[in-house]
Amino acid sequence: MTRTVLESKSKTVVIGFDEPFCVIGERINPTGRKKLAAELEAGDFSTVEKDALEQVACGAMVLDVNAGVVYNSNPNPNETEPPLMRKMIELVQGLVDTPLCIDSSVPGALQAGLEACQGRPLLNSVTGEEERLELVLPLVKKFNVPVVAISNDDTGISEDPDVRFEVAKKIVQRAADFGIPAHDIVVDPLVMPVGAMATAGRQVFTLVKRLREELGCNTTCGASNISFGLPHRHGINAAFLPMAIGAGMTSAIMNPVRQVEMEAIRAANFLMNHDANGGEWIRFSKVLEAVEGGMSFAEASSNQSSAASGRRGGRRARA
Amino acid sequence: MTRTVLESKSKTVVIGFDEPFCVIGERINPTGRKKLAAELEAGDFSTVEKDALEQVACGAMVLDVNAGVVYNSNPNPNETEPPLMRKMIELVQGLVDTPLCIDSSVPGALQAGLEACQGRPLLNSVTGEEERLELVLPLVKKFNVPVVAISNDDTGISEDPDVRFEVAKKIVQRAADFGIPAHDIVVDPLVMPVGAMATAGRQVFTLVKRLREELGCNTTCGASNISFGLPHRHGINAAFLPMAIGAGMTSAIMNPVRQVEMEAIRAANFLMNHDANGGEWIRFSKVLEAVEGGMSFAEASSNQSSAASGRRGGRRARA
Repeated sequence: MTRTVLESKSKTVVIGFDEPFCVIGERINPTGRKKLAAELEAGDFSTVEKDALEQVACGAMVLDVNAGVVYNSNPNPNETEPPLMRKMIELVQGLVDTPLCIDSSVPGALQAGLEACQGRPLLNSVTGEEERLELVLPLVKKFNVPVVAISNDDTGISEDPDVRFEVAKKIVQRAADFGIPAHDIVVDPLVMPVGAMATAGRQVFTLVKRLREELGCNTTCGASNISFGLPHRHGINAAFLPMAIGAGMTSAIMNPVRQVEMEAIRAANFLMNHDANGGEWIRFSKVLEAVEGGMSFAEASSNQSSAASGRRGGRRARA
Repeated sequence: MTRTVLESKSKTVVIGFDEPFCVIGERINPTGRKKLAAELEAGDFSTVEKDALEQVACGAMVLDVNAGVVYNSNPNPNETEPPLMRKMIELVQGLVDTPLCIDSSVPGALQAGLEACQGRPLLNSVTGEEERLELVLPLVKKFNVPVVAISNDDTGISEDPDVRFEVAKKIVQRAADFGIPAHDIVVDPLVMPVGAMATAGRQVFTLVKRLREELGCNTTCGASNISFGLPHRHGINAAFLPMAIGAGMTSAIMNPVRQVEMEAIRAANFLMNHDANGGEWIRFSKVLEAVEGGMSFAEASSNQSSAASGRRGGRRARA
């Protein structure tokens, strides 16, 4: 049974074939978020703080941290991104006790994040591109962390799932040369939009099975890509996630502050027998009740989550 | 590729591995519906009419018709059910051009339904019980119709999925003795409530694959059983259906007048590449928009469905 172990200062999260689906919160990322980018350049971390707390309350088990902002004052990310990554990692791990996922295309930012991060973060990402393999795998080995492996290479992203499988296999083999085990590679088989490629869903389901059975790897994806460009995207996402989980997908990088997707994942966990006695589902149904009563999903989740801490505190106090 | 062909007077529906999921509307059934039972005894068919039209508008591709009402005036269903089944079949097929599923535990009612039904209905059901096999399979053969095979036998419903598979296999073999092919057997592997049996979901996914690969059979289920007794049942159902479809389930007997389940099925069809260019999803998204605007799902579906007929009529007129 493949287990990828992530750690924060005091908390362990396992991505695994026999574990609940691992939700990696994607929100702390200035890409495409102009307001957040401007805030970060101005040294304002209030949105990062809000996003960290809200995502964890809504059920994120790991938080992705991306510092990929292009400053107006200095357009060289090799200079600006490493110190910003360090600062954001320190901030987030001071706020929440959740393992982190260090997300950058700048090697210096990956290194800075690894140095700043407590525990055992997930590194995001390596690809099958020669330059990336040579830059990222030594960091993975040195810091003994798991890594997301995206199945594109120097030829780009293939539309042929067999080619994407071969790229993943190459990364796993190259990692083995560095002494990195397959259970520390979390493969992203690349999710195409089903509106543009009719076989996109089936490709993922087939790839996930092969990656699991033939390479023994955990898997992840940018789940919302599947519905890109379509009306009522969340309905597509909410069917895709249970289908991917049924096919063996073990994690996704996604927005956990969305009720329909989180509801689909929690129901799928229950149906996969990864929610003993449905305890998580029953707790979650209280959040859904609060939402039906007019509360936002984030607010209802935060209330439920602090009520749970309060109860735990109460028990400790009585013990 | 297994194909189970159903027909109404002029319409063909195929249940198959490469077809959109077949939704069999379950509403025309007085079991547990006291008001409907009383109406039927009084000769009032207005609810049957409404249920037929509404289910088809919401996306039912086949309508189940069950006449299992126990009359206060005559408690013998062997006397009362056959004429009522005939009457209901005639009524429904006069209203909608959808293949029917004749649903009874009374052999005389199955026979009366088969005699009254145009086209090629689905017979519901045979089990692995000796008496049922001997009573129902000759009707299946005589009328050359497909049949739902429920995987319980004289020992009851086994909690062991391997035993349920063996029961299904026995029914398929017995049917073969009558000259009935496996593609005319639609197996119901029996869905247990996941709240009572933690492995219920996984059992179904595994069984569906085996029934398909080892017996070449289409499958169906009473989908809502999975969530029996749980809070927010529709959330469980809406994850179960895509997962079952991903595992290879090809139909379900269910309530099509529920938005969340129908949304999950339509998204799953798209993701299985059974919705060319997403045309059905895009049409369905107009219904979702109307629901967001405050309309009921049934009403929005009826409007969309008559708008579609109107457009088709218009085209014919211009041709």
